[in-house]
Amino acid sequence: MNFHSKYMEDAVDQISSLPGIGKKTALRLALTLLKRKPEEIERFAMAVMDMKEKVKYCSSCGNMTDEQICVICKNPARDHGTVCVVEDIRDVMAIEDTGIYKGIYHVLGGIISPMDGVGPSDLNIQKLLTKMEEGYVKEIILALSSTMEGETTNFYLYKKLRAFDVKVSAISKGISFGSELQYADEVTLGRALMNRSSYQND
Amino acid sequence: MNFHSKYMEDAVDQISSLPGIGKKTALRLALTLLKRKPEEIERFAMAVMDMKEKVKYCSSCGNMTDEQICVICKNPARDHGTVCVVEDIRDVMAIEDTGIYKGIYHVLGGIISPMDGVGPSDLNIQKLLTKMEEGYVKEIILALSSTMEGETTNFYLYKKLRAFDVKVSAISKGISFGSELQYADEVTLGRALMNRSSYQND
Repeated sequence: MNFHSKYMEDAVDQISSLPGIGKKTALRLALTLLKRKPEEIERFAMAVMDMKEKVKYCSSCGNMTDEQICVICKNPARDHGTVCVVEDIRDVMAIEDTGIYKGIYHVLGGIISPMDGVGPSDLNIQKLLTKMEEGYVKEIILALSSTMEGETTNFYLYKKLRAFDVKVSAISKGISFGSELQYADEVTLGRALMNRSSYQND
Repeated sequence: MNFHSKYMEDAVDQISSLPGIGKKTALRLALTLLKRKPEEIERFAMAVMDMKEKVKYCSSCGNMTDEQICVICKNPARDHGTVCVVEDIRDVMAIEDTGIYKGIYHVLGGIISPMDGVGPSDLNIQKLLTKMEEGYVKEIILALSSTMEGETTNFYLYKKLRAFDVKVSAISKGISFGSELQYADEVTLGRALMNRSSYQND
């Protein structure tokens, strides 16, 4: 592709460096931006720069925040005795969107994955153990992906957490709400049968 | 979605303002950027700002350029007597990628589309007519999309260009290279039959 403009080429190169965006899509996005007003482009660029400069990770749980401690950890109305362990910041958002959980979180920043060269020392695990030593945590909920890596990480954390007087649970795996049995894969269906819960009319 | 960070929310809002990018994709892209080094983010933001500030439209043909006249119009080796009329800057790139065309271009910046409120006066047509009046253009190739709007624009331009002593042609429509007859739609196949060309062994 010849852009006949070095500046357009630079912009397309930068945009296409983002995951899932190829050269053609990047060009389409760049041309959209080119049609906007200069002040809109400045707002776009400043928002990205400000994000990099000002978004921090909560020093307590690893969630995203503009301050040192995130709004969830700072909230006295949340149950600080219950910690939900998740892989990623996006998982915090997904659980918060349910509106059901009232405890606090701990973001690992990944899961143990030998194939990708990610071991326990690469994850935000030490801070969780330090938090445990402070003694106020009564329950840990492991909410990791339902994959081999997720299960491995669950097992690793479970072994580490056994040393403390704490209830450890994992979120339930089973058939998704609204999905039909016949389309569920065998492993999911098998586990859903094994982990059946007594019928409640709630 | 609650981001727990105003700056992250701003960045996601800006990124998701681009066409075809929803909030979830924007968040994924923002988190990718967040993981990069500060100087990489600055390079990203500067490339977008520089593009807006420095990319111009060629005052002769409307193509993208960093200077007043684009590299194609400035090139004395190109045939300035042949003008290929296209809708968009991306069409110039596509034709240049074929390596076959040696003339110059004229970018309309759109096509006549009453449904979208685009009329002839919204397009870069006047400059084409001014160029015609200078008298050195001998051939016009209409290379617009093969749609109702494209055909309308072709016809409009043809009527305007009739006043000049110039050969007007349109790119051929037919079966795509490598595609099978049975999958071609009726209109395409019908036209390909009507516009058949005598067999050449080239």
